[in-house]
Amino acid sequence: LVSTNAGGTQVLRHGTMRALVAGLEAVLPDGSIYHGLTALKKDNRGYDLKQLLIGGEGTIGIVTGVTVKTVPALIDRCVIWAGLDSPEQAYDLLQFLSGRAGTNLEGFEILPESCAASVMTHIPDVRRPLEGRFAWYALAELVRDSADGPDVQALAERLMSDAMELGLARDAAISANEAQAENCWKIRDSIAEAERASGPALQHDISVPVEKMAAFITSASPEVEARFPGTAVAAFGHLGDGNVHFHVKAPLGETKAWMDAQAGSISALVYDLVAREGGSISAEHGIGQNKLAELARLSDPAHLLALRAIKTAFDPDNLFNPGKLVPLA
Amino acid sequence: LVSTNAGGTQVLRHGTMRALVAGLEAVLPDGSIYHGLTALKKDNRGYDLKQLLIGGEGTIGIVTGVTVKTVPALIDRCVIWAGLDSPEQAYDLLQFLSGRAGTNLEGFEILPESCAASVMTHIPDVRRPLEGRFAWYALAELVRDSADGPDVQALAERLMSDAMELGLARDAAISANEAQAENCWKIRDSIAEAERASGPALQHDISVPVEKMAAFITSASPEVEARFPGTAVAAFGHLGDGNVHFHVKAPLGETKAWMDAQAGSISALVYDLVAREGGSISAEHGIGQNKLAELARLSDPAHLLALRAIKTAFDPDNLFNPGKLVPLA
Repeated sequence: LVSTNAGGTQVLRHGTMRALVAGLEAVLPDGSIYHGLTALKKDNRGYDLKQLLIGGEGTIGIVTGVTVKTVPALIDRCVIWAGLDSPEQAYDLLQFLSGRAGTNLEGFEILPESCAASVMTHIPDVRRPLEGRFAWYALAELVRDSADGPDVQALAERLMSDAMELGLARDAAISANEAQAENCWKIRDSIAEAERASGPALQHDISVPVEKMAAFITSASPEVEARFPGTAVAAFGHLGDGNVHFHVKAPLGETKAWMDAQAGSISALVYDLVAREGGSISAEHGIGQNKLAELARLSDPAHLLALRAIKTAFDPDNLFNPGKLVPLA
Repeated sequence: LVSTNAGGTQVLRHGTMRALVAGLEAVLPDGSIYHGLTALKKDNRGYDLKQLLIGGEGTIGIVTGVTVKTVPALIDRCVIWAGLDSPEQAYDLLQFLSGRAGTNLEGFEILPESCAASVMTHIPDVRRPLEGRFAWYALAELVRDSADGPDVQALAERLMSDAMELGLARDAAISANEAQAENCWKIRDSIAEAERASGPALQHDISVPVEKMAAFITSASPEVEARFPGTAVAAFGHLGDGNVHFHVKAPLGETKAWMDAQAGSISALVYDLVAREGGSISAEHGIGQNKLAELARLSDPAHLLALRAIKTAFDPDNLFNPGKLVPLA
């Protein structure tokens, strides 16, 4: 979790692991131990070694202990499932809910109808929260974690009533109990599994600035589909973080071998489009070895210089997780 | 602000600059420019150069541009001024307010009576918020930043009524308007100026884990006063961050020359007591050149190794802000 700076569906409110690690202990390549487990909310004693090790993929230190921030247990939550016309409408709804609910908004995810249909086909024991079919859906969770916090169900009803009036959603279901809330999350959390069951696909974990993501999905998806006829893009996930999983599905009837042969060209196009917006080719999954070449191709020279300088400074003999994260010069 | 990872009285809710920088641009010692202004909420493309430059005191790069996170404008706020018996009671009150008010608690500061008296003597146009005198005071601010947020004045009254019943405060004043809220903050913000006017003092900007700070103040203050007879400790500030400004005032009648002669021994004792708790000798003010020797004396060897390795990797010719932050080997 720490070495990959893991994310997920609650980053919107709580941040990635980078925001949740209060202290850590690590073994450095020269054998010395960094003793940093004590949780200090403020500490300005120079370069933040902790932040360097978070997301470092074990290349300059092996994290052997960690002090994590905890957050208050939830007292109550309510899930909104909204039917929408477009990612742009989803973004407007996100802005509206975020402005009105503040930190009571715990998560905001989106998915296209193709993903919902895929889940209904391949995953047992899930139900569509809405009768109608819409081009896109948003899943928003409102939470209460303090005794004096709001009644989240009443808040959800009030907000979505106002949102519908403002044209920010076509229709909405509001969970009345935990089973209904769980059902909505099961749809979201089953997308990857359902997509795998529905045929070969190429996955990308990308981010752009939050306010640009809707336009990115709307323009990049047809661009990729046009360049590789028969493919279908499914972009879903963390709209509130400017991060979606951008899956490109093989044409109907094509095999994994076809996809493997096209993978390099398709990904290069996706990453070029991401780079054009100043985005990241790895939002939450890291670089590892699979993305090394693309990182080298698309990085700011100063960023590459910094990666290599840091790796060499800590691990001159390349002992720790060699061949990962840092492209060779 | 960025290069010193600045803090302040709202860190409790919003974090230091480390949490508020969404992107930055910097010139590195080799002349290359790091282009990182684009605000990405998620980006896992290797070591976080941004976090390395924040708090780096300009020693490995000069920050030339920054994208900052903004927060919603406050719609309303209410200040609580509580009279207390001890730092321990202040901590219990903090825990209570934090648990009940959640993220509506924007700040929580403490000061001893000696600081309040000093402000009343030396600063014009401030009034004591409470009739009685208490050993300690806490200043807490509750805020509303969304239309659906709580009525902060009603919340403050409800919480302090409950807190008094639980024995978490001796007395409390709740601001009824902006002028009263401003008066409380003026007392807090004038302490440094009032202390300077009241005689020679030695300042320390220290942190320990939040839950240990009350006991630290209670035990360290008499220990320092006993070792240096006639001195008086005034510890005040950001209890909610585990960070206080630990001032040691010269004996009555002593000059700045006396203080300068004692400074090394007094600070060494204070920092030893801080180190015993796993704390930091610089919570929010940085190392600069004044704290270099103490940093070298008290640092984990692996931390020193990391500081030097990073400095050398980026700035082998020691061009950027030489003699600051990184103790020479």
